[in-house]
Amino acid sequence: MAKKNKTVRPKARLPRGLRDVGAHEIRAMSDMLDAIRNVYDIYGFEPLDTPAFEYSDALGKALPDQDRPNAGVFSFEEEDGQWVSLRYDLTAPLARYVSENYDGLAKPFRRYQTGPVWRNEKPGPGRYRQFTQFDADTVGTDNVAADAEICMLAADAIERIGIPRGDYVIKINNRKVLDGVLQTAGIDPVAPENAEQRMTVLRAIDKLDRLGREGVALLLGAGRKDESGDYTKGAELAPEQIAPLLDFVSASDGDLDTILTRLRSLVGDSERGQEGVEELRQIGALLAAAGFEDDRVRIDPAVVRGLDYYTGPVFEAELTFEATGDDGRAVRFGSVGGGGRYDGLVARFKGVVVPATGFSIGVSRLYAALEALGKTNSATATGPVVVLVMDPEHTADYQAMTRDLRTAGIRSEMYVGTSGMKAQMKYADKRHAPCVIIQGDDERAAGEVTIKDLVEGSLLSTKIEDNKEWRESRPAQISVKRDELVEAVKSVLARHNG
Amino acid sequence: MAKKNKTVRPKARLPRGLRDVGAHEIRAMSDMLDAIRNVYDIYGFEPLDTPAFEYSDALGKALPDQDRPNAGVFSFEEEDGQWVSLRYDLTAPLARYVSENYDGLAKPFRRYQTGPVWRNEKPGPGRYRQFTQFDADTVGTDNVAADAEICMLAADAIERIGIPRGDYVIKINNRKVLDGVLQTAGIDPVAPENAEQRMTVLRAIDKLDRLGREGVALLLGAGRKDESGDYTKGAELAPEQIAPLLDFVSASDGDLDTILTRLRSLVGDSERGQEGVEELRQIGALLAAAGFEDDRVRIDPAVVRGLDYYTGPVFEAELTFEATGDDGRAVRFGSVGGGGRYDGLVARFKGVVVPATGFSIGVSRLYAALEALGKTNSATATGPVVVLVMDPEHTADYQAMTRDLRTAGIRSEMYVGTSGMKAQMKYADKRHAPCVIIQGDDERAAGEVTIKDLVEGSLLSTKIEDNKEWRESRPAQISVKRDELVEAVKSVLARHNG
Repeated sequence: MAKKNKTVRPKARLPRGLRDVGAHEIRAMSDMLDAIRNVYDIYGFEPLDTPAFEYSDALGKALPDQDRPNAGVFSFEEEDGQWVSLRYDLTAPLARYVSENYDGLAKPFRRYQTGPVWRNEKPGPGRYRQFTQFDADTVGTDNVAADAEICMLAADAIERIGIPRGDYVIKINNRKVLDGVLQTAGIDPVAPENAEQRMTVLRAIDKLDRLGREGVALLLGAGRKDESGDYTKGAELAPEQIAPLLDFVSASDGDLDTILTRLRSLVGDSERGQEGVEELRQIGALLAAAGFEDDRVRIDPAVVRGLDYYTGPVFEAELTFEATGDDGRAVRFGSVGGGGRYDGLVARFKGVVVPATGFSIGVSRLYAALEALGKTNSATATGPVVVLVMDPEHTADYQAMTRDLRTAGIRSEMYVGTSGMKAQMKYADKRHAPCVIIQGDDERAAGEVTIKDLVEGSLLSTKIEDNKEWRESRPAQISVKRDELVEAVKSVLARHNG
Repeated sequence: MAKKNKTVRPKARLPRGLRDVGAHEIRAMSDMLDAIRNVYDIYGFEPLDTPAFEYSDALGKALPDQDRPNAGVFSFEEEDGQWVSLRYDLTAPLARYVSENYDGLAKPFRRYQTGPVWRNEKPGPGRYRQFTQFDADTVGTDNVAADAEICMLAADAIERIGIPRGDYVIKINNRKVLDGVLQTAGIDPVAPENAEQRMTVLRAIDKLDRLGREGVALLLGAGRKDESGDYTKGAELAPEQIAPLLDFVSASDGDLDTILTRLRSLVGDSERGQEGVEELRQIGALLAAAGFEDDRVRIDPAVVRGLDYYTGPVFEAELTFEATGDDGRAVRFGSVGGGGRYDGLVARFKGVVVPATGFSIGVSRLYAALEALGKTNSATATGPVVVLVMDPEHTADYQAMTRDLRTAGIRSEMYVGTSGMKAQMKYADKRHAPCVIIQGDDERAAGEVTIKDLVEGSLLSTKIEDNKEWRESRPAQISVKRDELVEAVKSVLARHNG
């Protein structure tokens, strides 16, 4: 009896919330990222790369809990006892970089960065623990021209990758205006003791899309019970405080002047509120001067963004078209990116305020939208020409043919397996080869090669039903002299791409 | 007295062995990676991406030590108690991927992958804990044509990025030939009890470059004491066993036939050894058929590669030119990549042998060599045209000018800071702006803009010494009608690039 192998073999599988990415997506994604990069370059931003992990304290997370060091972020302890974490966004590393290199930087400092970020959160459909962001930020100026420019940048990038005008909108709001409305309602928005209540208000408004005015009203008041019976505690505002907030978030109708007039009256004599409205007016004017109209960029007071570090203008990029999902139902992609002004992040290190504004694209969501629009077919994605190995004795000849094709810039390969003809044809099919090259004894004797057009062949095979007729007519198959191989393959490829 | 801020601020710094990468390197590196990618695409390989971390056991590392989970690799424990590790190369994830998706893959499976890998080792000059690799592998065939192709691929990739023929060489050897030599010397190379001795022999031969024949002879025998007095234990071979090994590693002189004849006699009647020589002969024939001569790819028995998982042919890409380092001394770059046949990696999961061969480029080393050759100037690296803000009241006008330039595809930006003229000019200088656009009151009244050519200007400033003359002649500065701005800037840029 044969000896049983008792070695325990590891199972080949990925941890949950992680995935492999195949050729099609890599190529199309790379085209998409190149398009965005091109826009950011034209705008004068410079690329920057930071490493995958950093000191946990530099990333702005509290020292990880010894017992659960990986809650939210992935962290590990260095041999010297210091904690490091995988980056969870690209903004925290930027703040560290700017602080570390402040004196040497041309200011305002304008950089873009793309790359994976990691979050140790519960994965779900389309929600991964590793995903890609693409950020652009301007650091070192409180000039609203920088905010206006970020909105143009976002709109141009989305259009450049192939989302048509009208199918997206960049929405702008200003945290200061919301603060003004709160102030008018008798709540000091910057008092530390009100910070939690203010965040509850932000989170409630953020749900307008999903819950409507009535749902938000409940969350601004005592609280709300959802369909499952779960109860969410509210911001405990009185009805007379809630009313102006609801007026505020619904103030997006009309042209820019109409909206600004409405906002001015809602913030009353709150200085902070009036400052916010004035910033929105200036941003609107700059956008108009650059030819960005309502159909691309507009003010929408319902946009608040969930993050608490925003201090002024906030932006959200939204896709407005509907696509049909795999299940036949309508899919809306909604937000594909957002950002805003954050004047406190660099201050964490330097102790002085370094104003900054930026925008982050959720790359996977944007890609999913492009896929739904049928716009992810990269030009480089065609399969290789496959040179079949009819006779292993003559491998060197087949290798030389492959070499000639490659030298001419034609994507091609000699079959490097050891199986027979049938398996080789199957391989070529599976690789989506546009054609295969064949040289058997007869062809060799005649100094010829045969080119079998698989694209044409599979089209014809739907028309010719008789097996015999097929074999006799040998459709989509031509023989040429060996030294005419490259030119002949070029014409086959040209026919398919033409 | 002002209240003292008692908050402890984190220090802005990176953990050791990590670094930020700036615009110049990112752009040039991206050009380099695109060139390699292009070659691999032409060869018919397909891209694949795997996530940054995987289950530790799937990556082939023993379960990390609870006390030192980060020795060698970076590992952390998931909430369910399973260990995951950041990938330390791209081969282990490939083995996991192939095993997981085996049935659905077109075989041989040919993929390339590039990305960062992480090693928790002591950093040093040019040695980082995060670095980039670029791998290509063919999985699922024991055909030596696949090995020969990998060597062509490596040579073509290195040439495509700009290393001239003659400045690099791909060296090939075969582990089986070394095994044959050992067998002839009376050591069974595949017996488990000899595994350690065989690795000691491999490591000794690997040092031929540095220690010469005599040093290697000591390491093959009793051992060797280095200059610092440290003693390295040897492989304990007898003098009559050492002699054929030294003949083997020095057998690289002469043409292919001469080398093969010499190797055949060295392996004697070892079947494994003769098999190895025959594989080298076939690889040599295929390379010759594809036009790869001795000046690009050649057999060198001194190449053994340190990794123990190679089972047949091994490859090493070496740069042969010398460059001058920052300290004026000659620098040799040596190995910039390597690979070989490994038939056991996928077997770890599947229990059956899945033969594979591949090559990994050490991207940073290759980049350093390109830098030394002065070939890292990316075409996209010119600074932006900067539109100065002479009068903040007219920001919208400056924004519109910037918009016009961008729409014409000209990299440009409006200054978005809040400082005065002098600081704006300094900013433009620091950004390497080719020119700045100026519109003050006079120009506005005349419907004109001024273009100041900074490249030309800085050239002239070395010639004109008189400050007054400078001001009066206003060199490198032209005024044009506002609607001629784009065309005028285009000609300034064309002059610099011409």
